[in-house]
Amino acid sequence: MNGARIVGQVRVVGSGLLGASVGLGLRAAGVDVVVADASPANQRLAIDYGAGREARDTDNPSLVVVAVPPDVTARVVAAELAAWPDALVTDVASVKAAILAELRDLGADVDRYIGSHPLAGRERGGAISARGDLFIGRPWVITSHDDIPAAQVGVIEDLVLDLGAVPVQMSPQQHDDSVALVSHVPQVISSLLAKQLIGAAESAVSLAAGGLRDTTRIASSDPELWVQILGANAEPVIAILRDYLSDLSALVDSLSTLEEPGARRRLAELLAGGNTGVARIPGKHGQDRRYSQVVVMVDDTPGELGRLLTEIGDIGVNLEDLRLEHSPAAQIGLAEISVLPEAEQRLVTDLEARGWRVVQAGA
Amino acid sequence: MNGARIVGQVRVVGSGLLGASVGLGLRAAGVDVVVADASPANQRLAIDYGAGREARDTDNPSLVVVAVPPDVTARVVAAELAAWPDALVTDVASVKAAILAELRDLGADVDRYIGSHPLAGRERGGAISARGDLFIGRPWVITSHDDIPAAQVGVIEDLVLDLGAVPVQMSPQQHDDSVALVSHVPQVISSLLAKQLIGAAESAVSLAAGGLRDTTRIASSDPELWVQILGANAEPVIAILRDYLSDLSALVDSLSTLEEPGARRRLAELLAGGNTGVARIPGKHGQDRRYSQVVVMVDDTPGELGRLLTEIGDIGVNLEDLRLEHSPAAQIGLAEISVLPEAEQRLVTDLEARGWRVVQAGA
Repeated sequence: MNGARIVGQVRVVGSGLLGASVGLGLRAAGVDVVVADASPANQRLAIDYGAGREARDTDNPSLVVVAVPPDVTARVVAAELAAWPDALVTDVASVKAAILAELRDLGADVDRYIGSHPLAGRERGGAISARGDLFIGRPWVITSHDDIPAAQVGVIEDLVLDLGAVPVQMSPQQHDDSVALVSHVPQVISSLLAKQLIGAAESAVSLAAGGLRDTTRIASSDPELWVQILGANAEPVIAILRDYLSDLSALVDSLSTLEEPGARRRLAELLAGGNTGVARIPGKHGQDRRYSQVVVMVDDTPGELGRLLTEIGDIGVNLEDLRLEHSPAAQIGLAEISVLPEAEQRLVTDLEARGWRVVQAGA
Repeated sequence: MNGARIVGQVRVVGSGLLGASVGLGLRAAGVDVVVADASPANQRLAIDYGAGREARDTDNPSLVVVAVPPDVTARVVAAELAAWPDALVTDVASVKAAILAELRDLGADVDRYIGSHPLAGRERGGAISARGDLFIGRPWVITSHDDIPAAQVGVIEDLVLDLGAVPVQMSPQQHDDSVALVSHVPQVISSLLAKQLIGAAESAVSLAAGGLRDTTRIASSDPELWVQILGANAEPVIAILRDYLSDLSALVDSLSTLEEPGARRRLAELLAGGNTGVARIPGKHGQDRRYSQVVVMVDDTPGELGRLLTEIGDIGVNLEDLRLEHSPAAQIGLAEISVLPEAEQRLVTDLEARGWRVVQAGA
């Protein structure tokens, strides 16, 4: 049974995590998917995992999805546009304006190319990590442009909806400016913070708590991939990093001359800017002002956390967010539970009545 | 019944979150606790909450714990040393060398003062948020110095152990250098990253994913408190921030001249430095290489996450870490579960057999 919006054959070029996940997702919806990869071994692996079938001479795809590393995306898209003159071509790279510009430089037929970018999963990992439901509920940016007829945008929307993702329309530059701010700059800032730990004393890193862990979590990303991404989106990333450098220099200056008039005020204003900025991030969020946090002690044994959360369900309180912290020295964990403020008191009372140790509560 | 190691009366000065929590914890161990606060209203509140009793003329504390904001800590410690010539005095402020130096400048009797710092809880919030078990399993740094007889360090260790925390010995400067790296610098870096969101388009912040959320989570901290903390530990914080500025300038330079020989290598090395640094953070950790991550879809209704974790307990797999992500567009959440790699395959198989949708799995 074919429940897909997409009509016709889809050709996926590149069988890494994203390409193979697109293939698996479309096949689950009943679409005829062809998988191609410059590496015959990777292609066979993706086919073994069910991401699609091998190409045949009679193939005539209506849509080509290019899922290769950012630095070769434009060349592969151009080759696919030339090879399939009736097909619409998209790609899933995390930068968009540079690829469109390169395609125009290459003289490619860009009136059949619409870039896109699913904000899902990690950007590395092979077919072995692929899942057909990788994109469910995630934003998937579609970057149309002036040379594209509106009807063709609908085809990419169908692809996005078939994979369970949420289509978001942006221009290529608007996309790149957005991901520079919410993804590329945070990566740089986090990597360089983690880099400062290299020479640190063992005793210093042993004091690491949630703040350091959170701010450095993404610093384990693949440097080679990030050189490609940053290189392909250098201008907006540099613009934001220059603002950051200027703010950080101002902060160091204020901190170095704290007894001078106005220095403490300037330092406070820079830090308060962080309060204003973080409040703009939408959605559920551990430190969100809209939620109260309840911290409960949990034995570090199988099933204990499950028992806690089952009882929270029994109490009838919806958990808005959950973070775990482990004691550095004991076999206990602390579960930080975010709930609506009006539910907090009842939750604390009922949990304590059931014998749980509530360590800390408050907004 | 008195199960405390601490002998004699303890006087707690300052009835905020930390002071009131010390009082509650010691009283639970059977210690006679006196609570004093410059604000009579706050003092009454802490006493109402059970953190201790009012002072009497006959009081003769053996230990005084000063739990007031960092900028007034030295003056309050000096006053307590003068008022109680037989007592040992400690404080719980998050900076240590500046306070000891100020005490020496004030001519205080520092051979009865040992600073300390529990790495627990938030540094704000009043008695209303206090819990006697706030410190359980947390590191508590004790910063002895040359003027202190070794036996007196044992008294502070008794305090720390009575409150369930883990004593860690450091010099005041070693403490300050350590928290500059693992707490104060991350706060600055995170606040300034969040500040860059102030002027961003709504559509840009709507793409925010886990990376941005993690790196900016602590940016909602209180600016006034942080001006005090950074001001009292300016030197080590500035030293690390200057290294950071130099790394960030080098990264911007490389990114601005990416076609020049060596620029891509320099960029890759800066990012790889983040890989090396983050690997130094000990303990359980979502991105820890030692664990595999299994991502499971969970309906966003009360009890569903509990049911999942209960079943993981039934399967007999221990959960090493857990993070929740909420889809921006749907009533579902994604639970990222960290488990030992050898348990991953069994967990995925058993969860799928029980009807759970495993979205993504891998190291």
